[in-house]
Amino acid sequence: MSLDVTEIARISDGGSSKPQIQARVDLFKTWDIPSGSKILEIGCGQGDCTLAMAYLVGEQGHITGIDPAPLDYGAPMTLGQAQDKLKQSEIGNRITFHQADLEGFLNSSVSESLYDYAVFARSTWYLPSAEALTPMLVALRGRTKHLRIAEYATDIQGDIAALPHLLAAISQAEFNSRDDNLDRQDNIQSIITPQKIRELAHKAGWVLEKEDVIRSPEDQEDAKWEVGRVLSEKYRVRSRSSGGASRQEYADALISAVEESKRALGPSPKLRTLPTWLGSWA
Amino acid sequence: MSLDVTEIARISDGGSSKPQIQARVDLFKTWDIPSGSKILEIGCGQGDCTLAMAYLVGEQGHITGIDPAPLDYGAPMTLGQAQDKLKQSEIGNRITFHQADLEGFLNSSVSESLYDYAVFARSTWYLPSAEALTPMLVALRGRTKHLRIAEYATDIQGDIAALPHLLAAISQAEFNSRDDNLDRQDNIQSIITPQKIRELAHKAGWVLEKEDVIRSPEDQEDAKWEVGRVLSEKYRVRSRSSGGASRQEYADALISAVEESKRALGPSPKLRTLPTWLGSWA
Repeated sequence: MSLDVTEIARISDGGSSKPQIQARVDLFKTWDIPSGSKILEIGCGQGDCTLAMAYLVGEQGHITGIDPAPLDYGAPMTLGQAQDKLKQSEIGNRITFHQADLEGFLNSSVSESLYDYAVFARSTWYLPSAEALTPMLVALRGRTKHLRIAEYATDIQGDIAALPHLLAAISQAEFNSRDDNLDRQDNIQSIITPQKIRELAHKAGWVLEKEDVIRSPEDQEDAKWEVGRVLSEKYRVRSRSSGGASRQEYADALISAVEESKRALGPSPKLRTLPTWLGSWA
Repeated sequence: MSLDVTEIARISDGGSSKPQIQARVDLFKTWDIPSGSKILEIGCGQGDCTLAMAYLVGEQGHITGIDPAPLDYGAPMTLGQAQDKLKQSEIGNRITFHQADLEGFLNSSVSESLYDYAVFARSTWYLPSAEALTPMLVALRGRTKHLRIAEYATDIQGDIAALPHLLAAISQAEFNSRDDNLDRQDNIQSIITPQKIRELAHKAGWVLEKEDVIRSPEDQEDAKWEVGRVLSEKYRVRSRSSGGASRQEYADALISAVEESKRALGPSPKLRTLPTWLGSWA
């Protein structure tokens, strides 16, 4: 597996760090998706997972990555630049990107009529709410043989070094659940729990085949990024830009809790990224 | 110390369990309050802490407990019944209860002009907001020689068995920070962090002398009670009675997180009550 990671890192040409690639490879291998699969990836973002999957499905496989985000979104590289770079890599011919939402894409002429797999690779927390997932799960019925969803789990499984990430997620979800908040730039918009995903998929007619929970690679950087975001002065200022006094005070307490949970781990602590829950349906 | 606890349990005549009494004795001893002290206890509730302090200050000491809550509040025993029972105990003459808020009480003729200690013994989270603490801290200036505040700390100090209590507190504080929520029956109304208390006390002119953090006795029942409350069907129904759709979805995710953090500890887990932060000012 480390050979995979080194190879993918070489192909990505500095686009992703090894721990981030490892985290994507871990998802794919847990799902046991065979070579040659045709995959629709929903919420592909800059394509980190797309590239890992493109490598792992081999020459006969193909990944179609869709994301509704504007192509000029993101820094230092924009979404469009990152996607173009992957397209130009030596396995770029196994990848197609579309700027589209799922329903629009499925109704368009560029969509296949049937995919082997539809994959959400840690993209559901970007959705504004769990309710936004419902029509997507319904639309995918009959358009893919298999459904795979990976998302962070709020159960830190006894690993106290993951507590700051959990509390940072709770803080960001609080901020982004405010009705009067129009400043939706966070990576975590909603916390959609495995329980909720199970429930929505069941309602949409999907049959759950398997669930797994995997730990994140020790060096995966998401915990550090999300905790850093919440503890920044900019975030505190944004937090005071919406919500009433009670809500802002509640938000302050969450930020303090993130701070304390980090401090409790000692100076320059190694933060652990939340574990990932993986669901498989057909 | 265990002699104290057994003695106080005997005097309380079934009013409090030994672990709950132990938790109160621990506060008092950490503060090192001398025998004979005249103490004003703010937010005394049913008087659990009042009784422990009355025992520990000895025959020359006195505790004045104030609480604005209606005397018919609480079950199975009401506040009034519990207080009457303590008054009738063998050390009841060391205790006076008043149904009053702090400012009203200090301005009344029944208040002493100067107390040795003013104590908030885990009563600040019952306040509707941190802002409600400010005028109280100001009003106490010149009316007590010493100020002591004990409140739960959100830093679980690496003890994963305390995570369900932390998340239950975050859930209750979320519910009670809703502007449209008129159903304020929870024990936790606001999370007021040590950082916030330090800041407000400083602004009110108090000089911080000492801070301590103590673990809760293993058997202290608050974690079990608060987690049980959040996981009850009644709580879930209440949670859907106010707030918008986004807020309710956020609240659902918090309840799920409480559930998962409890399940992760195994069947019939022993939940640990949050540690307590203790501040001492003069």
